[in-house]
Amino acid sequence: MTKPFIQELVNEMTLDEKLAQLTQLGPYYWGLDDTVDLTGPFKELKIKPHAIENIGSVLNGVGARNAIEMQTRHMQKSRQKIPLLFMADVIHGYRTILPIPLALGCSFDLEACERFAELAAKESAAAGIHVTFSPMTDLVRDPRWGRVMETSGEDPYLNARVTESMVRGYQGKDLKEKGRIAACVKHFAGYGAPEGGREYNTVDMSSGVLREFYLPAYKAAVDAGVAMVMAAFNTVDRIPATGNEQLLRGILREEWGFNGVTIADFNSVNELIPHGAAVDGREAAEKSLAAGLDIEMMSTHYLHHAADLIEQGRLDVALIDEAVIRVLELKDALGLFENPFKDADPQVDEAAEPNAEHLQTARQLGASSVVLLKNDNEALPLKRGMKIGLAGPFATSIHVLGGWAGTEKDPAVSLYTGLSLKTSAGDILTAMTGELGSMLEGVFDVEDGIEEAFHRLKDCDVILAAVGENQQDTGEGGSKTNLRLSPNQEKLIWRLKDTGKKIVTIVFSGRPLELKPVLDASEALLQAWFLGSESGNSLADVLFGDYNPSGRLSMSFPYTVGQIPVYYNAYSTGRPYDPMYPQVRYVTRYLDCPNDPLFCFGYGLSYSNFAYSSFKVEAADKLVASIEVENASDTDGKETVQLYIHDVSASVVRPVKELKGFRQLSLAAHEKQVVSFEITRDMLMFYGKDDQLVFEPGEFDIMIGRNSGDHFTRRIHID
Amino acid sequence: MTKPFIQELVNEMTLDEKLAQLTQLGPYYWGLDDTVDLTGPFKELKIKPHAIENIGSVLNGVGARNAIEMQTRHMQKSRQKIPLLFMADVIHGYRTILPIPLALGCSFDLEACERFAELAAKESAAAGIHVTFSPMTDLVRDPRWGRVMETSGEDPYLNARVTESMVRGYQGKDLKEKGRIAACVKHFAGYGAPEGGREYNTVDMSSGVLREFYLPAYKAAVDAGVAMVMAAFNTVDRIPATGNEQLLRGILREEWGFNGVTIADFNSVNELIPHGAAVDGREAAEKSLAAGLDIEMMSTHYLHHAADLIEQGRLDVALIDEAVIRVLELKDALGLFENPFKDADPQVDEAAEPNAEHLQTARQLGASSVVLLKNDNEALPLKRGMKIGLAGPFATSIHVLGGWAGTEKDPAVSLYTGLSLKTSAGDILTAMTGELGSMLEGVFDVEDGIEEAFHRLKDCDVILAAVGENQQDTGEGGSKTNLRLSPNQEKLIWRLKDTGKKIVTIVFSGRPLELKPVLDASEALLQAWFLGSESGNSLADVLFGDYNPSGRLSMSFPYTVGQIPVYYNAYSTGRPYDPMYPQVRYVTRYLDCPNDPLFCFGYGLSYSNFAYSSFKVEAADKLVASIEVENASDTDGKETVQLYIHDVSASVVRPVKELKGFRQLSLAAHEKQVVSFEITRDMLMFYGKDDQLVFEPGEFDIMIGRNSGDHFTRRIHID
Repeated sequence: MTKPFIQELVNEMTLDEKLAQLTQLGPYYWGLDDTVDLTGPFKELKIKPHAIENIGSVLNGVGARNAIEMQTRHMQKSRQKIPLLFMADVIHGYRTILPIPLALGCSFDLEACERFAELAAKESAAAGIHVTFSPMTDLVRDPRWGRVMETSGEDPYLNARVTESMVRGYQGKDLKEKGRIAACVKHFAGYGAPEGGREYNTVDMSSGVLREFYLPAYKAAVDAGVAMVMAAFNTVDRIPATGNEQLLRGILREEWGFNGVTIADFNSVNELIPHGAAVDGREAAEKSLAAGLDIEMMSTHYLHHAADLIEQGRLDVALIDEAVIRVLELKDALGLFENPFKDADPQVDEAAEPNAEHLQTARQLGASSVVLLKNDNEALPLKRGMKIGLAGPFATSIHVLGGWAGTEKDPAVSLYTGLSLKTSAGDILTAMTGELGSMLEGVFDVEDGIEEAFHRLKDCDVILAAVGENQQDTGEGGSKTNLRLSPNQEKLIWRLKDTGKKIVTIVFSGRPLELKPVLDASEALLQAWFLGSESGNSLADVLFGDYNPSGRLSMSFPYTVGQIPVYYNAYSTGRPYDPMYPQVRYVTRYLDCPNDPLFCFGYGLSYSNFAYSSFKVEAADKLVASIEVENASDTDGKETVQLYIHDVSASVVRPVKELKGFRQLSLAAHEKQVVSFEITRDMLMFYGKDDQLVFEPGEFDIMIGRNSGDHFTRRIHID
Repeated sequence: MTKPFIQELVNEMTLDEKLAQLTQLGPYYWGLDDTVDLTGPFKELKIKPHAIENIGSVLNGVGARNAIEMQTRHMQKSRQKIPLLFMADVIHGYRTILPIPLALGCSFDLEACERFAELAAKESAAAGIHVTFSPMTDLVRDPRWGRVMETSGEDPYLNARVTESMVRGYQGKDLKEKGRIAACVKHFAGYGAPEGGREYNTVDMSSGVLREFYLPAYKAAVDAGVAMVMAAFNTVDRIPATGNEQLLRGILREEWGFNGVTIADFNSVNELIPHGAAVDGREAAEKSLAAGLDIEMMSTHYLHHAADLIEQGRLDVALIDEAVIRVLELKDALGLFENPFKDADPQVDEAAEPNAEHLQTARQLGASSVVLLKNDNEALPLKRGMKIGLAGPFATSIHVLGGWAGTEKDPAVSLYTGLSLKTSAGDILTAMTGELGSMLEGVFDVEDGIEEAFHRLKDCDVILAAVGENQQDTGEGGSKTNLRLSPNQEKLIWRLKDTGKKIVTIVFSGRPLELKPVLDASEALLQAWFLGSESGNSLADVLFGDYNPSGRLSMSFPYTVGQIPVYYNAYSTGRPYDPMYPQVRYVTRYLDCPNDPLFCFGYGLSYSNFAYSSFKVEAADKLVASIEVENASDTDGKETVQLYIHDVSASVVRPVKELKGFRQLSLAAHEKQVVSFEITRDMLMFYGKDDQLVFEPGEFDIMIGRNSGDHFTRRIHID
């Protein structure tokens, strides 16, 4: 039920005031500094000054001082004293920058995900932010897409769990609480599947695939009480999500019961026009409002056309009212009517030093996000006292915060700095540390220095090659067709290999890169992602074994770009490949590449060695699968035990396996533990022919193991 | 209405006889030589000998003598004297091998397509074949898929026109006519879109995309009266096509009114089991029969389980009867009840020499399928008397028939032979002509000989590099992740370039390869495909200008495999790339590659130079677009004028352009001609939200030009 005071506000509002309430603009219009990146026709919006007085929300008008100033001015002018909502892109931390979300997903640690969001919320709230455009929970299968960095990967189950943890972390139990902000899950729906991995490209899939793989994580956010949902740029069933009634009203509100606010993406109402889904701004407004899109972001078609549409009977004013009510309800939930500044606190926000406790959390989250991909001959961990060679564009770089860093107030800790803090002076020798330029700037790779690096480092005990991609070449608008390391980075690694020393390759990237070309040159391979403020410290912890690596891949690493999309939960085919018969031609296969990725979903090594045994599937009153896991090593470690299920035969074709649960165990050296999973009915359900959730009795394969490619399997009948 | 004698036959049949009639097996079971490639569990079918007596049709039991022998034995044993149907994979010619279909599509010559099929039908009929599994009209966008060679490309309109021409060519007006055979369009539906271009992989798309792009060509075949439709291996909406009732019964029969025979693909009824769409053979039979699949190919679940299914009330015998009636009606339409041998003629089939007239046709079709992709500084045509260097694995190769050649009785004419016939002895110097092995055999590239080739050819006037992919590495089961020429072929071209002579690169392939790496080394680039029996003669005609190249690409050539899928008729996006602003990041783009392909759909050069002018769109009683085309050169030539249309705004997002017509002009040197296209209502219709064909008034862009990337455009309003 709508609170009476909100209903009254709406009753007293003019139509123009309502439409302004549904409009989001950048801080530019309030005469303050413009900190937003202008990708829309921002300066051509032709806003009348009086409309500004009633605008509902501000995009990326961050900083406590700015926010307080703007809110103060706004409250003086606002006829009804309706506070502004401040929304911002806080993607992986605000001041303390945390690992990019793709890395966070690799932690498989839901408590960590919640802490991640909680920390980001605390700092954001102090900066005057009320809503963050996070979590982004788009399922992804194509590492060419730059924005895979912003999501938790290829699995609907993992994405859903990470997302609901993040929503809890941002929002807490009550948005009014100090340090809590509203979350906005995005991008509804299917934004993670642009064709060819090309940013903003067409998305197309069957409704069955949409429901099975792409929708569950958004739904998990809704079920966790997310306050806001952002409509995607892309089409769903050939209709842009922003103006897609079946999606925004049908699935989101009617089917899932979402009562919160929906918001456009940057300029996406306007983009119905180039999309060819609206003739002009008028039709763009009509379609978006009819679809149930509450807030228009960075375009002003609601403001300029909705009145006319209502007058002509093409739009019911009730649609406007319900949208305004939802926006006001969110402001109320955040307590803004009582305190329009909420937690904005210039003293906290502008503290000279970053928060030490937050940095400590960032360091832990970073370490648990790193994935050890290869470790032959115990190349890692490094031992104190070793002479360490360190080369490559990420050796001393502080540009490892990752794209979408909330602020870049404080520099990140470089790998070199992190290592230095654990070693004695002179233990580390660096070479060829020149950074990569970004592709958009043209030069991104140089050859000079490879020979020099070889000579300088050849007498070290071990050589670390810190390679990867410029952080600007990932993220939004960062699509690439070539996923290899730059040619000279590959050359550097191979030349260093000529020293005969152990080469440890450390990869900084916002996506799975094509690592096969350097795999054989590397004794050890560590996926370092972009870990944020404490990057170098997190990595040093892992490299020296102060943190035993526990990360597992949240996204498959392809052998080659020509193999994309490659992901673990593919549908069964009629002619499966049998590795026992590699010469058989007429099965699903490539002539020149395996079907499997180089490193599969769920994969990741540890300095410990875990042994699995006693796999059982037992049915009493409950159906329970269990396995015994032993840390068969002298090193304490953390293991992520994974449960997969395959429905052998059904009315529609089923994936070869689907993650349905996982459990993280901390096992001391030589400790054993039995892990069990209850197999519940909902794990076995799926969307059948008519997009209805069904359970069909029959045979199922129950799998438990280390990753999606290494597990025990038992086939059982379930009625 | 079913003819009374057919109804009587069915009435008198036992259920076992009916089921045998719906079963297709290889010739093995008739005790003759087995010429079929065994990819199914052929020898494990457990057929009882008496079932063989009633089998309805034979797969690839080719050769007039064999067919007559088998039919004779069969007719002696058949209780009801129902003749066998002989079906075979005649894909691009039977004895006279014609260009692969992807090349044929590049001719944009529908009369040629009809002749192609007519010629193949004539030779097939003489070999005792009654039905060919052609045309394959699967729309394709992914050159990683080996089987793109077997279709006519990426465009629904071109595919539809090619397909209906081929159906006419095979079937004529009456299947009883001498030299006519029944056509079987395949693979219904969407087989051309396996994920990742990996053979037999999952296919997934929205129903809108299925209808808009993939279905039209199958429908064109049905409208042209095709006798048979083959169900695809893949899933459509997560259900294998073979057991997909909505597809085979709903769309094909009810919506399109198809009355002919449907047939499984090789073992595809059985493959419902590994697909996870049927628990066992019994359920596979049940689902396929319920779906409306008439003939089971190379598995025997109908034979072994249908009786039981009927007895248990899970299947209506009427479904069996209607399928049997359709099979018998096809036999009747072919005149087999009067003459079970039809046109089988050992004398023709086993003639010592191939038919000279057919070879002449093959030569013409080959020449018109070749596509000239680059021709700087008039590198081509070659002049008589030139000293010609010829190097590369396809220089002297006769392995250029292309996969799926009907028979390989006669060797193809090599490029060397073709050139020799037009030159004097000693004019051609060859080097490094060792052939490529196929990938499945392991070794496919050698470096030896590059230096020798350089030295041997450096004094020639021009050097032809005949490169490409082994023909076994295309076609079914020929999926690849790397589309570049083998490393040593690229090296060879670049080394030859060091001679300073003009390099003409001639590419033999069954798919668009990645040619960017050799583009700058090549003064001219000629896409030679696999042209069949007369390959070398067709190419020599083009190279010497005896045939002025007129082929246009039926499929886009990507810059790089990382750009796939890249095709011209993509949907409009909300943030289109503007080439005027190459530094703008937040538009649909890659950081490291253009959006457009290297060579686009419809592209192809000529030795003539065609100028376009006076583009008009005029509305009187009809809406007509016209343009004047002038052959502004001294060389007679053929030009393919193309009409594209774009619907600017609609209820669902529309493609940026769609081919809606084309016209081939033969223009003598300096001749002019006005070409006009009537813009009809059906060109403007599309499948709207509910999969209904609609016309929506509004603005449309009318485009006429040389190819999908080079045209005049006019925007007009159409009510």
